[in-house]
Amino acid sequence: MASYNNAQLADQIPFNRYPPWVLSKLRPQAVDLIQRVYRWVETECIPAEQIMKAQVAENRWKTAPLMHELRKKAKAQGLWNIFLPNHFKESPGLTNLEYACCAEIMGQTYWAAQTMNCHAPETGNMELLAKYCTDAQKEKWLRPLMNGDFSSAYSMTEPDKATSDATNVSCRITRDGDDYVINGRKLYGNALWNEEMKLYILMGCSDPGNPDVWKRHTMLLVPSNSKGLTMRRNLTIMGYDHAPEGHGEYTYNNVRVPKENVILGEGRAFEIAQGRLGPGRIHHCMRLIGQCERAYELALLRCKDPRKQPRGKYIGQFDSNIERLATMRLEIDALRLVVLNAADTMDAKGNKAGRYVIAQSKILVPETAAKIVDTCMQMYAGQGLTQHTPLPEIWTYARFVRVADGPDAAHRHQVGRDQLKLHEATRKRHEAYADKARELRKIWDLETSDGELDWEYVPPVAPKL
Amino acid sequence: MASYNNAQLADQIPFNRYPPWVLSKLRPQAVDLIQRVYRWVETECIPAEQIMKAQVAENRWKTAPLMHELRKKAKAQGLWNIFLPNHFKESPGLTNLEYACCAEIMGQTYWAAQTMNCHAPETGNMELLAKYCTDAQKEKWLRPLMNGDFSSAYSMTEPDKATSDATNVSCRITRDGDDYVINGRKLYGNALWNEEMKLYILMGCSDPGNPDVWKRHTMLLVPSNSKGLTMRRNLTIMGYDHAPEGHGEYTYNNVRVPKENVILGEGRAFEIAQGRLGPGRIHHCMRLIGQCERAYELALLRCKDPRKQPRGKYIGQFDSNIERLATMRLEIDALRLVVLNAADTMDAKGNKAGRYVIAQSKILVPETAAKIVDTCMQMYAGQGLTQHTPLPEIWTYARFVRVADGPDAAHRHQVGRDQLKLHEATRKRHEAYADKARELRKIWDLETSDGELDWEYVPPVAPKL
Amino acid sequence: MASYNNAQLADQIPFNRYPPWVLSKLRPQAVDLIQRVYRWVETECIPAEQIMKAQVAENRWKTAPLMHELRKKAKAQGLWNIFLPNHFKESPGLTNLEYACCAEIMGQTYWAAQTMNCHAPETGNMELLAKYCTDAQKEKWLRPLMNGDFSSAYSMTEPDKATSDATNVSCRITRDGDDYVINGRKLYGNALWNEEMKLYILMGCSDPGNPDVWKRHTMLLVPSNSKGLTMRRNLTIMGYDHAPEGHGEYTYNNVRVPKENVILGEGRAFEIAQGRLGPGRIHHCMRLIGQCERAYELALLRCKDPRKQPRGKYIGQFDSNIERLATMRLEIDALRLVVLNAADTMDAKGNKAGRYVIAQSKILVPETAAKIVDTCMQMYAGQGLTQHTPLPEIWTYARFVRVADGPDAAHRHQVGRDQLKLHEATRKRHEAYADKARELRKIWDLETSDGELDWEYVPPVAPKL
Amino acid sequence: MASYNNAQLADQIPFNRYPPWVLSKLRPQAVDLIQRVYRWVETECIPAEQIMKAQVAENRWKTAPLMHELRKKAKAQGLWNIFLPNHFKESPGLTNLEYACCAEIMGQTYWAAQTMNCHAPETGNMELLAKYCTDAQKEKWLRPLMNGDFSSAYSMTEPDKATSDATNVSCRITRDGDDYVINGRKLYGNALWNEEMKLYILMGCSDPGNPDVWKRHTMLLVPSNSKGLTMRRNLTIMGYDHAPEGHGEYTYNNVRVPKENVILGEGRAFEIAQGRLGPGRIHHCMRLIGQCERAYELALLRCKDPRKQPRGKYIGQFDSNIERLATMRLEIDALRLVVLNAADTMDAKGNKAGRYVIAQSKILVPETAAKIVDTCMQMYAGQGLTQHTPLPEIWTYARFVRVADGPDAAHRHQVGRDQLKLHEATRKRHEAYADKARELRKIWDLETSDGELDWEYVPPVAPKL
Repeated sequence: MASYNNAQLADQIPFNRYPPWVLSKLRPQAVDLIQRVYRWVETECIPAEQIMKAQVAENRWKTAPLMHELRKKAKAQGLWNIFLPNHFKESPGLTNLEYACCAEIMGQTYWAAQTMNCHAPETGNMELLAKYCTDAQKEKWLRPLMNGDFSSAYSMTEPDKATSDATNVSCRITRDGDDYVINGRKLYGNALWNEEMKLYILMGCSDPGNPDVWKRHTMLLVPSNSKGLTMRRNLTIMGYDHAPEGHGEYTYNNVRVPKENVILGEGRAFEIAQGRLGPGRIHHCMRLIGQCERAYELALLRCKDPRKQPRGKYIGQFDSNIERLATMRLEIDALRLVVLNAADTMDAKGNKAGRYVIAQSKILVPETAAKIVDTCMQMYAGQGLTQHTPLPEIWTYARFVRVADGPDAAHRHQVGRDQLKLHEATRKRHEAYADKARELRKIWDLETSDGELDWEYVPPVAPKL
Repeated sequence: MASYNNAQLADQIPFNRYPPWVLSKLRPQAVDLIQRVYRWVETECIPAEQIMKAQVAENRWKTAPLMHELRKKAKAQGLWNIFLPNHFKESPGLTNLEYACCAEIMGQTYWAAQTMNCHAPETGNMELLAKYCTDAQKEKWLRPLMNGDFSSAYSMTEPDKATSDATNVSCRITRDGDDYVINGRKLYGNALWNEEMKLYILMGCSDPGNPDVWKRHTMLLVPSNSKGLTMRRNLTIMGYDHAPEGHGEYTYNNVRVPKENVILGEGRAFEIAQGRLGPGRIHHCMRLIGQCERAYELALLRCKDPRKQPRGKYIGQFDSNIERLATMRLEIDALRLVVLNAADTMDAKGNKAGRYVIAQSKILVPETAAKIVDTCMQMYAGQGLTQHTPLPEIWTYARFVRVADGPDAAHRHQVGRDQLKLHEATRKRHEAYADKARELRKIWDLETSDGELDWEYVPPVAPKL
Repeated sequence: MASYNNAQLADQIPFNRYPPWVLSKLRPQAVDLIQRVYRWVETECIPAEQIMKAQVAENRWKTAPLMHELRKKAKAQGLWNIFLPNHFKESPGLTNLEYACCAEIMGQTYWAAQTMNCHAPETGNMELLAKYCTDAQKEKWLRPLMNGDFSSAYSMTEPDKATSDATNVSCRITRDGDDYVINGRKLYGNALWNEEMKLYILMGCSDPGNPDVWKRHTMLLVPSNSKGLTMRRNLTIMGYDHAPEGHGEYTYNNVRVPKENVILGEGRAFEIAQGRLGPGRIHHCMRLIGQCERAYELALLRCKDPRKQPRGKYIGQFDSNIERLATMRLEIDALRLVVLNAADTMDAKGNKAGRYVIAQSKILVPETAAKIVDTCMQMYAGQGLTQHTPLPEIWTYARFVRVADGPDAAHRHQVGRDQLKLHEATRKRHEAYADKARELRKIWDLETSDGELDWEYVPPVAPKL
Repeated sequence: MASYNNAQLADQIPFNRYPPWVLSKLRPQAVDLIQRVYRWVETECIPAEQIMKAQVAENRWKTAPLMHELRKKAKAQGLWNIFLPNHFKESPGLTNLEYACCAEIMGQTYWAAQTMNCHAPETGNMELLAKYCTDAQKEKWLRPLMNGDFSSAYSMTEPDKATSDATNVSCRITRDGDDYVINGRKLYGNALWNEEMKLYILMGCSDPGNPDVWKRHTMLLVPSNSKGLTMRRNLTIMGYDHAPEGHGEYTYNNVRVPKENVILGEGRAFEIAQGRLGPGRIHHCMRLIGQCERAYELALLRCKDPRKQPRGKYIGQFDSNIERLATMRLEIDALRLVVLNAADTMDAKGNKAGRYVIAQSKILVPETAAKIVDTCMQMYAGQGLTQHTPLPEIWTYARFVRVADGPDAAHRHQVGRDQLKLHEATRKRHEAYADKARELRKIWDLETSDGELDWEYVPPVAPKL
């Protein structure tokens, strides 16, 4: 019944990349969808990369005609909004695990997810709107987003604050009559300069004096054409403008939105933020793995490129490069296991319980991915850094994800602090070992004076400092 | 029905270490066995470490009385030979995945596996004997090994040859009447000095001139008390003698064994060797993960040891150590995913198809494990390298596994060479991209002269060098 | 007498960065020049970075008015061509060591060297022209370059060959009457689009069938306005166009230059190439160290930026960042020792004998520098990759130097192959140890049978494979 | 005049390892001494390693007869106490730089320094006694130490405290009549079990309540045969007992020493400790570099060992190993530059001003050295961890130095905290850049509104948190 029993299938890309336990969980309809996504990316996206680049070059801040066409075509084929979780009636009902497989494939080309309306930040925004907005808000904003009529951005980072700790967000929201008035500066968020960008979901501080720091912030729906909202300039990432979406530096100068534009209610931003980021991080990470596969294939191509034979040998005949291929292959596959397990854990236990595995992906994948792509670039020698391959853009994306949603140190601190909470239980287990050890010494008649002089690695209870 | 639905269980060690997909595959009897192994190691092994050390110190090359007692006790409880695959009638029938969970637990104490007769090299040897020996051979050697009456070793490495490439094995086997006569030198293999060591499974070269290199070698059963077989001295590992089993340097000086002692037949050593190492590598790796968990717990203990407060703070209050904890936690869990997936893949596809995932474990786990344990040692500062904790022995074990069964570079080369075989298929896929790209240029009316000048990253077909 | 005895001086930037042995070698006139270069970069270059960027943005492939002005001003102050070695009459007579100190300072801003006519590739080109050209060639090309009237490029890399092994250069040069005719494609070399670019020094293959591979190649002086020479497009480096100099993709389509434009003579390219690269690599490396210092200062600034306080602390109060600062400081200073020693070795023994130390700098500096700058970027979190700091450009420069003049693996191979030549001498020394050891065993009456059985780590003589 | 002008000399080991600036600073008498030390180690120490091991094996805690003989012989040749600084009349007057060259040579064999009475901890102890003791104390303890009549140890580390922060030392010293009474536990310090060990220089806490933490501690001369002083057991380092000197666990149980045994006076331990460690750290580091050279030579031997040819090639024909050789060579030479520069800086500016360069050596050398030796071990595959080569002992020494005198994190923190002090000066320099930049904008008529919106990377003054 299930397609994964089909041995022939399991030998084909992309299925041959999945471990058996994953193959066995892919339902027939998912297998079918994965195949269609794969064909879509292989035939419609990867070969079109240079066309897309040429069209964007011509009209820097306008969505390319090719993108419009591909989106129309993908939608017609049902390759649209496939990321949507079950609670949407439009959802194809993929599990996180199944969608993760799709996301990896989409990752192979930077903009492939967008052709299927499955790109960041739209996916996170749509989930947020679906979960927390009123019906009226949904009608106005969610429906056209799902329809692909316009695009949206998420606006949290600030230039003057350490917003990786979101309690520092300080863009000021004040109530004035039936309006909210916004003043402050923001970074990132997609570029206003693209005329399809219609909506910013803004996190700001509405009640700075609230003794409960988790209730000081509010989220608002801000139309991009609001008076007083200006995009100062494009924010580049390692020099790339990432047009026509890109990032921006924004000034909110007495921007007014009607009070109906508040999401969930004043002071409830953290309730909303909590639920937003999990799945998106997994999508980012799976796309990065797709990018790694892409980079890896380019390295493999170079290994036996007859035009490139230093000292009379293919570079793939140098065993140092053979070791590099092996190391990359092993690491990519290990990363995939980490992310697929995170997706599956979210399926099994929910996003909240998945916090640790999401962090695991978020921390391990971008750093290792950047290292892998860097190795691929180096194997291309002088050409590796040029536009002759997509490697520099792939590297930049991996490097970017290391700082997106907070630098990895912030995530590591969270994991490490959680681990420290296990100290006391661990100490108790070791105390039990020590008790039993003392008992055994008596039984075996070992001089007990030992215990007094030896240093014991079971520490006493740690008083609160 | 299945125990893993029991939420309470899933929150307890060791089950809380397993990902959901693994929990869902553990059958009730396996869950029960894992729990019993866990209790066994926690209460009978870890607390007894110093007793074991003291007894071995007294009588360096004799199995400790405590070991004898624990083996008797474990056997009585049915914690015996549990590694055995299904084809043994004594097998408890664990899958590779289920047994891997047990192996991790055993790993926490160096010798715990031995209390259950599940230690290397016995496990590999028993499988080999079961698979390739005649009934008479089995009766004489396999039965007592399974019964725990004596122990055995595997003898392949040589001091004068690069035996990581086993075709180089040159210890000479010649037929003389009804005997085989052996001459040569071997390294490793457990120590003859321990009187319970009764059997060496020797790989030697019986037909050096055979044009088929895979048919030059033969395996023999060599009783340890054979005349002419001497152990020159103990071979230390980073200074550890690893008594009372340890390793040895051997001389075979006209050692004679009856022709009945040949396994499978002359020239068939490679047929046998092929099947031997897979599961053993997974066991090694899972035990290493158990050791990492042990080392990690010691690091965690140190983090809030009130006796150790440089500059007035627990070392766990320094965020550099918080980051170290996080990094180690994430890496241990990622390694576990790799090995559990390897075990599961072997369950799904067999040992042979599992070659890649076994190599993945073999290459990634020991290196990372050694690094993790090194970090733990460093967190103990001046005490970290002393016998105050088991950390130096744990590190040494991890380091040892990096060279056991061949250095990791040899395994990487194998993986890398296999990867290079994908070159041509990959190249063809890229050629298809290029064809499609040319088509698209026409459609979108992009000046085709571009194509002529741009460097194409699809290389031409690589002629065989 | 000498300024370096002035303790006050030794405490000031940049002198406090130099070790005592370097300070003691800086002659008073060099100290004076270093100070002037330092003030120049501090007051005229670093603060002008954004102006330069704005002017280039306006007129992408034209040298900025500010650059023209600064060059005029620097020249007037005698801060011009200071890289020139002693054999030039215009040379200020700096040693390699002294100039290396200047180069570090210039490195702090990408284009500062250019204001002093000390930038790559001009410096290498001028040395080449001075060393190998006829008086007529010098008059025509060297004089205006030294005067700063136009600029030049070096053209060797090709898209279709592994030109890191320069014997692969295949751009075809044929003699036709009184002309050389050139056909082929080249990468890199500064952009033809900048109208001040007047001269390419081209390496091509004039005699592909010559049995002596070192005599197949020729160097030509190629005016940039030669008919048939076209720049296809700008070659980007990690997305940066590096305008207005930048790099290019070139086509030589029956380009003709008069036979007078040959340098040194047909087939003598390797004689010329040999001497060219040494000092330039040291300059690159010292500039990179200046860039590291710049990046480091930015990291230091961030550490106590009161606007950025995640969890209520400066990021410099997290001890993980304190460790990062320390690690970077130690590594930058170690790299500086490596490069200054290379410069000093070239002073003492000449460029040729300095081959190893030049390779040491070339291999160690760019890789570590890129890692250091990456750490600085990460300390800036979300802003670290944007144009808010010069860090992304600094990182890109360091990354670029890792592939410029061949990828570091090529240089490592050269060093490693040279090392292998020491095998036999080393083996002999160990044989002498073994002889002496045997003697000692007799004297101390140690059972000599040991020697027979032990594995000896002195290998026999290695036959040529 | 000076030998270093002799080109032939500069091509010989060990002189060919030194950079020109070092060669030029070696005075003829130092060159002569270095040559003699080199010959001594080459002919008397390295070949005798196995004899030494055998003798120690026979009589574990007794100085070997060979050691006695070698010390007598070395002393007769004037290779004795050569580490002594100028202020000793017995000093050969070597600079730190010159002695560092000797120390590297000694490092090649673990115990070679001891044959010349130049080993740790004697060297540090003798300097301490010479600097801070009364004439009577010197007569009793320093003279015989210098004469080599007995040995001494330094006793500071404690099992129950974080003594890497020495203010935590808590071994209790109380005054009772004309005696000091000592109670507490100590770790490390050489083993009492060796009968030549006569003196412990003990740091303890005599005034725990003193508000000035730097005046709470006292140093005492404690004869090893003091009543109440017991060595509980040998403290192993990665399993090595390091007999016959080794380390110990000590109990001080009402140990009494006469008040004459106080060094410098009560409460003055920190005055003494300050000056002790600098040169010793440099010696350790240079010896480590000698060990790296030794390990490297072994790796080089293996590279063309005809007995070891996996897949039919010397391992030195695999270019991955060629790259490994190169990387190790480059790193060893870079480390040497770091330590030689530290020694030279101490010569130029004194030990105190050398604090940073000493820390630089202490942090960078052991970690990198351990990594290098690990690579060498791995190149020996299965034999690399055994006693077939000295590599495991070399690795262990390097690893040990990473925790000796405090773990490297402690040293990094010190360097990092010092760096943070430069924040404000750096900030001011950047403020000056910004002022100048604003000026330039006016001159070049750049829209000044930019400044208001751009994020400025010059942070405001950081208030004290």
